[in-house]
Amino acid sequence: MNSKTPSESKTVITDLVLPSETNPIGNMFGGELLARMDRAASISARRHSRRIVVTASVNHVAFNKMIPLGSVVTVEAHVSRAFKSSMEVFMDVWIEDRESGMKSKANEAIYTFVAVDEMGTPVSVPALQPETELEQSRFEAALRRKQLSLLLAGKIKPEEATELKALFE
Amino acid sequence: MNSKTPSESKTVITDLVLPSETNPIGNMFGGELLARMDRAASISARRHSRRIVVTASVNHVAFNKMIPLGSVVTVEAHVSRAFKSSMEVFMDVWIEDRESGMKSKANEAIYTFVAVDEMGTPVSVPALQPETELEQSRFEAALRRKQLSLLLAGKIKPEEATELKALFE
Amino acid sequence: MNSKTPSESKTVITDLVLPSETNPIGNMFGGELLARMDRAASISARRHSRRIVVTASVNHVAFNKMIPLGSVVTVEAHVSRAFKSSMEVFMDVWIEDRESGMKSKANEAIYTFVAVDEMGTPVSVPALQPETELEQSRFEAALRRKQLSLLLAGKIKPEEATELKALFE
Amino acid sequence: MNSKTPSESKTVITDLVLPSETNPIGNMFGGELLARMDRAASISARRHSRRIVVTASVNHVAFNKMIPLGSVVTVEAHVSRAFKSSMEVFMDVWIEDRESGMKSKANEAIYTFVAVDEMGTPVSVPALQPETELEQSRFEAALRRKQLSLLLAGKIKPEEATELKALFE
Amino acid sequence: MNSKTPSESKTVITDLVLPSETNPIGNMFGGELLARMDRAASISARRHSRRIVVTASVNHVAFNKMIPLGSVVTVEAHVSRAFKSSMEVFMDVWIEDRESGMKSKANEAIYTFVAVDEMGTPVSVPALQPETELEQSRFEAALRRKQLSLLLAGKIKPEEATELKALFE
Amino acid sequence: MNSKTPSESKTVITDLVLPSETNPIGNMFGGELLARMDRAASISARRHSRRIVVTASVNHVAFNKMIPLGSVVTVEAHVSRAFKSSMEVFMDVWIEDRESGMKSKANEAIYTFVAVDEMGTPVSVPALQPETELEQSRFEAALRRKQLSLLLAGKIKPEEATELKALFE
Repeated sequence: MNSKTPSESKTVITDLVLPSETNPIGNMFGGELLARMDRAASISARRHSRRIVVTASVNHVAFNKMIPLGSVVTVEAHVSRAFKSSMEVFMDVWIEDRESGMKSKANEAIYTFVAVDEMGTPVSVPALQPETELEQSRFEAALRRKQLSLLLAGKIKPEEATELKALFE
Repeated sequence: MNSKTPSESKTVITDLVLPSETNPIGNMFGGELLARMDRAASISARRHSRRIVVTASVNHVAFNKMIPLGSVVTVEAHVSRAFKSSMEVFMDVWIEDRESGMKSKANEAIYTFVAVDEMGTPVSVPALQPETELEQSRFEAALRRKQLSLLLAGKIKPEEATELKALFE
Repeated sequence: MNSKTPSESKTVITDLVLPSETNPIGNMFGGELLARMDRAASISARRHSRRIVVTASVNHVAFNKMIPLGSVVTVEAHVSRAFKSSMEVFMDVWIEDRESGMKSKANEAIYTFVAVDEMGTPVSVPALQPETELEQSRFEAALRRKQLSLLLAGKIKPEEATELKALFE
Repeated sequence: MNSKTPSESKTVITDLVLPSETNPIGNMFGGELLARMDRAASISARRHSRRIVVTASVNHVAFNKMIPLGSVVTVEAHVSRAFKSSMEVFMDVWIEDRESGMKSKANEAIYTFVAVDEMGTPVSVPALQPETELEQSRFEAALRRKQLSLLLAGKIKPEEATELKALFE
Repeated sequence: MNSKTPSESKTVITDLVLPSETNPIGNMFGGELLARMDRAASISARRHSRRIVVTASVNHVAFNKMIPLGSVVTVEAHVSRAFKSSMEVFMDVWIEDRESGMKSKANEAIYTFVAVDEMGTPVSVPALQPETELEQSRFEAALRRKQLSLLLAGKIKPEEATELKALFE
Repeated sequence: MNSKTPSESKTVITDLVLPSETNPIGNMFGGELLARMDRAASISARRHSRRIVVTASVNHVAFNKMIPLGSVVTVEAHVSRAFKSSMEVFMDVWIEDRESGMKSKANEAIYTFVAVDEMGTPVSVPALQPETELEQSRFEAALRRKQLSLLLAGKIKPEEATELKALFE
C-alpha cells in the first residue's frame, strides 16, 4: 500500500447553524458540533483508507468560542497520522462573520477511526506522509496523543509512554 | 451555596438506535452517541447549578463496543466535580440485549460544562460532595483531568500539573 | 414464564424541549410529547417481554399543563398490567423548573403494546406482579380500561364490561 | 360568530413512511403516526377557529393495522364538534397499495384542541354544523366522549354523564 | 394500459412551517419547500404509474412570495402529462392566513419523474387524459417544456424544438 | 462596491447519504439533494454579498445519475453572475466511489438568490468578475438564463430576449 498525503483526505463541510441547533442563549449546542465533526472526520478517514471506518475515540475537544445562531461554520478535516488500522483525524473549525467576511478559528478537535471490513474486523491502512510543516508537527504530536490514550486506558505503563514522559523531564 | 451530591444531578436518557443513526455495517454512529451524551450531560450540569450551562470541553472518549441497530442505549450522567464555575460530568453508557435482558457497559465519557448567566458570563456553582467510594474516586481523578486539560491548552506549565506529574514519578 | 414486577420494566427518558418542538406560543407540541412517550413505553414493554413490541393503542391522554421551551421533561414508564400477549404501560410525565429545581407533574398517559415474533404474530408475555400500593391500584384499573376499550371497539357487550358497569350502579 | 361546517376545516396530509420511521419488523412507529395526526388535527382546529390552538387531549386510539415501510399514508382530519373553546377533531387514516392503488382504512383517531389567545387564555370558537349523516353521527358521539373524558378526570359524577349512562341501561 | 386523468393522481400535503425551517428573517427556507414538493410530486407520480418513481428533473421554480414562520402551506400536485416512462407533475403551492382564512398562491413548480422497476430500469406508464381547461393548457405546455429541456441538455437541435421555436416566430 | 471573483464565494458541502434519505430502490431522494444544494448555494450567495439572502428561483435541474446509499456527495457552489440585487449560483455535484476513490459528476444545478436587508427589501450586491475560462462561459450563459426566466414569467417579450433569440436564428 502506497502512503498518502493529508491533502488526499482533506474534507470540508460548510453549513449554517439553525434555530433547532442552539441552546437557550442562542449558541450552537456542543453536541451538534460533535456530530458534524464526526461526519467530516469519518469521510476523511474513509478517503484515506477507502474502507468502511468506525469512530474509535474522540480526543480532548475544547469549545473556546461560542458559535451564534445563523453562523456559517466550516469543519476542515484531514488524516494527521495513520497507525496499523487506525487513523487520527485532525479538524480545524472556523466561523465567519457575515458582514465583514472575517474567518476566525472556533476550535480544533481530534478523532480516531478504525478501518474495518464488512464483518467489522480491523484491516490495514496506508501510511501517512506529511508534506507541510504544520502537517509534520501534527504527525509528531499524534504519537504522544496515542501514548496518552493507551496510558489512560491502562494498556501501557507510564514508563512505556516515552514521548509523553519526556514532557515532564 | 450549599454543596450538592452526585445523586442530585443524576440524569438518565434511555432510547433506541434507529436506522437513520447507523453506519454501513449497522452500528450506531459515534457522532449520534456524542450528541446524546451532550444532552444528558447538559441536563445533569443544569440540575447541579440551576443555571444555563454551555459545553466547555469533551474529555477523551473511547468507543470500545459497537452498538447495533435496534439496541436500547442508556446514558447515565452525574456531576463528578465542581470547580468555580465549571462542572465535570461523568457518564456511563450501557446497552442491553433484548432477549436476555443483560446490560453491558458500552463506554464512559466525561464532558465539562460552564454555568453562565443570560449574557453568557460565567457564574459560580455549588461544590460537589461525593458520597460513595466510586464517586470519591471520580472526584479525585477529576483534578488530574483538569490539570491535563490546562497543560494541553498551554495554560499551566508541566511542573504546575502536580497531580499529573505524580503519575510519572 | 415467571411473572415480573413493574420496577423491572421501569424506563426513564429525560430530555430538553428544543425550539423546533414548540408551537406559536412557545410550548411543546402535543405530537412531540406523544412520540417521546411512545418510545419510552415501547422500551418498557420490551423490557417486560424481551420481545419485539408494537403499539396497539393509546388510552385517553390529557395535556393538563403547558410545557414551555427549554424545559427538562422526564417521562417515566412502567408496565402496569400484562394480559395474554398485550401489556398496558403507565407513564408519569414531569417537568422541572431550572431555577428552583422543583418537579411538577405535567400529565399521565397509558399506552398498550403487543409482543410479536419476527413475522408479526402475537406471542405470550410474563404476568405482572405489582408491589407497591400505587402499582396495585394501577393494576386493578387496567382491567376496567381494557373492558372500556373492548366495549368502545364493539368487541364485548355493555353487560360483559363487569368492572366498568359497576361504576354506574 | 357564525357556525361552520366540517368541510371548512377538512385537512389532508399525505406522506410516505421512511426507513427512520419504522420499527424492527419494518412497520411505522406508533409514535410517528401520533405526531403526524397531531399536526393534521391542529391545522384542522386552527382552520375552524382561526386562532392559535393547543392539544388538550387524545382520545383512545387503536392501531388496528400495521403500516409497512414505503406506504403512502393519508390522514384526513375535520372538526367533529365544537364546545365553548374546545374542538373535537376526528381523523380517518388510510393507506394505499402501490400496485393495485387500493385504499384501506388503517385507523381512526380523535384529538381535542383548545383555542387560545397570545397569552394562552382560552377563547370562544364557532359552533359546528354537521351536514352529512356521518358528520351528524360523529357530532352526537362527541358529547358522549366528552362526558366520558370528564368522568375519567373526576370532573363530573357518573350520574351526570347522562349520554354515557344510557349505554348501560 | 388505460389512460388516467389528473384527478386520479391528485395529492395534497398540508403542513406547518416550523422554527427549524426558517431563515434569519423568519421565512421558510427555499430548500425545505423544494423537499416537500419532491415528496408530494413523487406520491402523485406513483399514483399515476403504480410503480417505483425517481426524480428526473426539476423545472424552473420561482419563489415569488415569502412564507412566514407558522404559516399553513398546502402543496397540491397532479400529473400534467405522461410520456413513455416519464411523467411531468405540476404543483400549486398555497398559504393561508390564520386570522382571515384567506388562501393565496405562493408559487408553482414542475418536477419530472421516471417510473422504474426494482432494478432501476425505466418502464412504461399510462397516458394522461386531461379533463378541465386548465389541465388541457398544462398538458400542452408540457410538450414545450420537454423540448426546452432536451434543447438545454443538447439532446435535440433548436430546429427540432418545434413547439418552442414557434414562440419566437 | 468592488467586484468579486467566483473563488471568493466558493462553498463546499461534503456529506454522506444516510438510510433515511433514500427511496425504495436505495438511492438518494431528489428532494434531499435539492435541500442540500439550497444550503450550499445560500452560503455562497451570502459570501458574495455579505447580506441576508433568500432563494428566488431554481433553474432547471436534471438528476442524471442515481446516488446510492452510503455515497459521499460533494456539492461545490460559486456565484456565476451578479445582477442588481440577485446572484446566480452554479453548483457541481460529485459522488465518489469508496473503493476506487474515483469522483464522478452526478449533476449540475443553478439557483438564484436575492440579497435583502432585515426588512426583506432587496439591496445591491457587488458585480462578479470571472477569472477562468469555465467561469467566463458560465457568466455569459447566465444572461441567457435570466432572459429565459423573465420570458417564461411573462416579464419580457420574446423579441427582448436577445441572447436567447439568437439561439434560434
